[in-house]
Amino acid sequence: MSAEIICVGTELLLGEILNGNARFLAGELADLGIPHYIQTVVGDNIPRIHEVLTQAIARSQIILFTGGLGPTPDDLTTEAIASFFDTQLTERAEVIEDITTKFAKRRRQMTDNNRKQALLPKGSDVLPNVTGTAPGMIWSPQENVHILTFPGVPSEMHQMWRDTAVPFLRSQGWGEMTIYSKVLRFWGIGESTLAAKVNTFFDLKNPTVAPYASKGEVRLRLSARAADAEQALAAIDPVATELRTITGEDCFGEDEDTLASVVGELLREHQQTVAVAESCTGGGVGAMLTEIPGSSSYFLGGVIAYANAVKESVLQVDRDTLTQFGAVSEPVAKQMALGVKQALGADWGLSITGVAGPDGGTPTKPIGLVYVGLAGPNETVEIFEYRFGDRDRATIRDRSTCNALDRLRRQLAARSDRPPSR
Amino acid sequence: MSAEIICVGTELLLGEILNGNARFLAGELADLGIPHYIQTVVGDNIPRIHEVLTQAIARSQIILFTGGLGPTPDDLTTEAIASFFDTQLTERAEVIEDITTKFAKRRRQMTDNNRKQALLPKGSDVLPNVTGTAPGMIWSPQENVHILTFPGVPSEMHQMWRDTAVPFLRSQGWGEMTIYSKVLRFWGIGESTLAAKVNTFFDLKNPTVAPYASKGEVRLRLSARAADAEQALAAIDPVATELRTITGEDCFGEDEDTLASVVGELLREHQQTVAVAESCTGGGVGAMLTEIPGSSSYFLGGVIAYANAVKESVLQVDRDTLTQFGAVSEPVAKQMALGVKQALGADWGLSITGVAGPDGGTPTKPIGLVYVGLAGPNETVEIFEYRFGDRDRATIRDRSTCNALDRLRRQLAARSDRPPSR
Repeated sequence: MSAEIICVGTELLLGEILNGNARFLAGELADLGIPHYIQTVVGDNIPRIHEVLTQAIARSQIILFTGGLGPTPDDLTTEAIASFFDTQLTERAEVIEDITTKFAKRRRQMTDNNRKQALLPKGSDVLPNVTGTAPGMIWSPQENVHILTFPGVPSEMHQMWRDTAVPFLRSQGWGEMTIYSKVLRFWGIGESTLAAKVNTFFDLKNPTVAPYASKGEVRLRLSARAADAEQALAAIDPVATELRTITGEDCFGEDEDTLASVVGELLREHQQTVAVAESCTGGGVGAMLTEIPGSSSYFLGGVIAYANAVKESVLQVDRDTLTQFGAVSEPVAKQMALGVKQALGADWGLSITGVAGPDGGTPTKPIGLVYVGLAGPNETVEIFEYRFGDRDRATIRDRSTCNALDRLRRQLAARSDRPPSR
Repeated sequence: MSAEIICVGTELLLGEILNGNARFLAGELADLGIPHYIQTVVGDNIPRIHEVLTQAIARSQIILFTGGLGPTPDDLTTEAIASFFDTQLTERAEVIEDITTKFAKRRRQMTDNNRKQALLPKGSDVLPNVTGTAPGMIWSPQENVHILTFPGVPSEMHQMWRDTAVPFLRSQGWGEMTIYSKVLRFWGIGESTLAAKVNTFFDLKNPTVAPYASKGEVRLRLSARAADAEQALAAIDPVATELRTITGEDCFGEDEDTLASVVGELLREHQQTVAVAESCTGGGVGAMLTEIPGSSSYFLGGVIAYANAVKESVLQVDRDTLTQFGAVSEPVAKQMALGVKQALGADWGLSITGVAGPDGGTPTKPIGLVYVGLAGPNETVEIFEYRFGDRDRATIRDRSTCNALDRLRRQLAARSDRPPSR
């Protein structure tokens, strides 16, 4: 038994909108544990809707349609489905009444166009639309084919799905299993290196373990199929713990954790504060740290030292050092970290200086060369050098920001009593 | 002749991500005037990839695949396509070399997993990936079937599409009519207010004019269909000029312009500099200004004055003022703007202080109350009060950042000789 999603809408084929409806339904099917292998997008065109429907009913038993239920002539979904199964449309009195009432409330007159929305295939049930005027339908035109239609308006579709479609599916005995997932998040390790470390886990069946990489972060998704969330977690948790033991501090958190939220938790735990001195990231580290509500309890602020004069005047970076080594250098990163820690009276001073490009690279200081400085309690300073290669400015800045936070995170975690596997 | 999109990825079937790649390719096909009737999403599963490929080549001549080109075992797209056409994979020396070089630049070792990315069907051409390690391919395995594959990472896919795929398609004689668009971008005016001002333009046929609103910004998209960009622009430009005359300074730019890039251009034109003093935005204004390459010529830096102590010590905000009026107040915004202008020696000082929430709101200072201070040449200071209501923290911070830049932009534009319609 599996479900299939067919989204009808020329605007999707023109790339005018993102297909949020497919994403919503896919996520809901996953949560219900109903297998789902194929999604199709097709235009408002009867022969093509017939074609994709032919393919869909050959492999799936539940067909979810979105879009094309409106009042205009290019809304053809219902008509296409009815003609595919050679079935007449009949006008539903309860729909006409519902539309009339809604129009009256908005002080508008129902048009002839709207009458069209009351036409549904003989034998189908109305799938009521509480807020909008376009109802859907639930129809089983032949054995093992269950068709549900929804309008394209997301808010209407969501409500119809939850209020009527899910109870219907459950009443048929589907959606009793659920898929529950946990995500482990990694920074400072590449996808292939991580994969090599945990290769054997990819063969597990319940939970499954799969890697994803995006913008320098790598994730492992653990998904278990079970009757409820508790049983799913019972399958997931031991595997998650094992993975965290193997990967150690490369795993920075789970699910909704971010580098900034984890750094925040650790600073709170240590009752320490941080200040930032940013050059090439221009305030990005501060912006990321302050995404977290309540960050004022550990983030004091910082200095955006974009011009060298600011590095000197506000951060007390030595002019000779700047002249001798240049702004993008280990000694300057060091003085920036110490300078901001001192100026703001923080426990930790975190600095970044680098060449974000696209101009300004030299043979000795190429684009992508970035230094992160971390001044800690007891006046210790560590400097980390990164070479991000010839990537675009936004990527270099983003990687710099995340790596700076990651360095602070690792330092704090090393001083923490908290076990890495929570 | 038509094109079809097949997106491969279990994460799409689980509803974990929006299918931005399908939207991108659909929009690009529309711009090229290449018909496109069907999109399919399928998991990382060889028999199912074969099934959708069977259907796709029966109706379309250009098949665009995204996703499933990575180094891990569940990346199966290339293998599935090769086996469908009964073709061997061969290792491409140039790809191995490219991956090795990229890893060397990042000071990493290539793993065996990565070698897999160099395997492409015999007879196919490499579709080079400039930034990532997973190349795509261009392959015509049989008459009237042209397959192009792209990795799922959007930035890599976009560049590969533009650099290699579009020239290939044009070389085949496709994409000769073009839809060319220009976007006018607005800040500080709502969608309905703007729509009321330019209502009559929405009936135009070539170019068409359509409004979009997203995250506080409103856009008007002007789209013309023509044989080439020059003819399209000849239709678009007079309408764009008329719209800019009607809307004045509410229109901050066109196409790729951002508030930060426009502020940058204006500062360059005036040969002036700016410094920022940020509280609730935590560095977001600095980060946005420094997104622009070359921003060091007008952006000196700033102070992230998250803690009140930093407002006092680095920005010289008066302690009594802080005590009497609170950190989120007109007088403090004023002193922050003046303080940072003075401390960094800039022509303009731009400050933000506000309640971003979700905690910290009071009846007199509710969540969403934000003050922007703008200290200009001649020691003038203007203060702007915003009430963003009870929105989420990210939205309040983002609106604050953009509005601060917009205030500086309007001040600079008012002093500029440049006509608003370029």
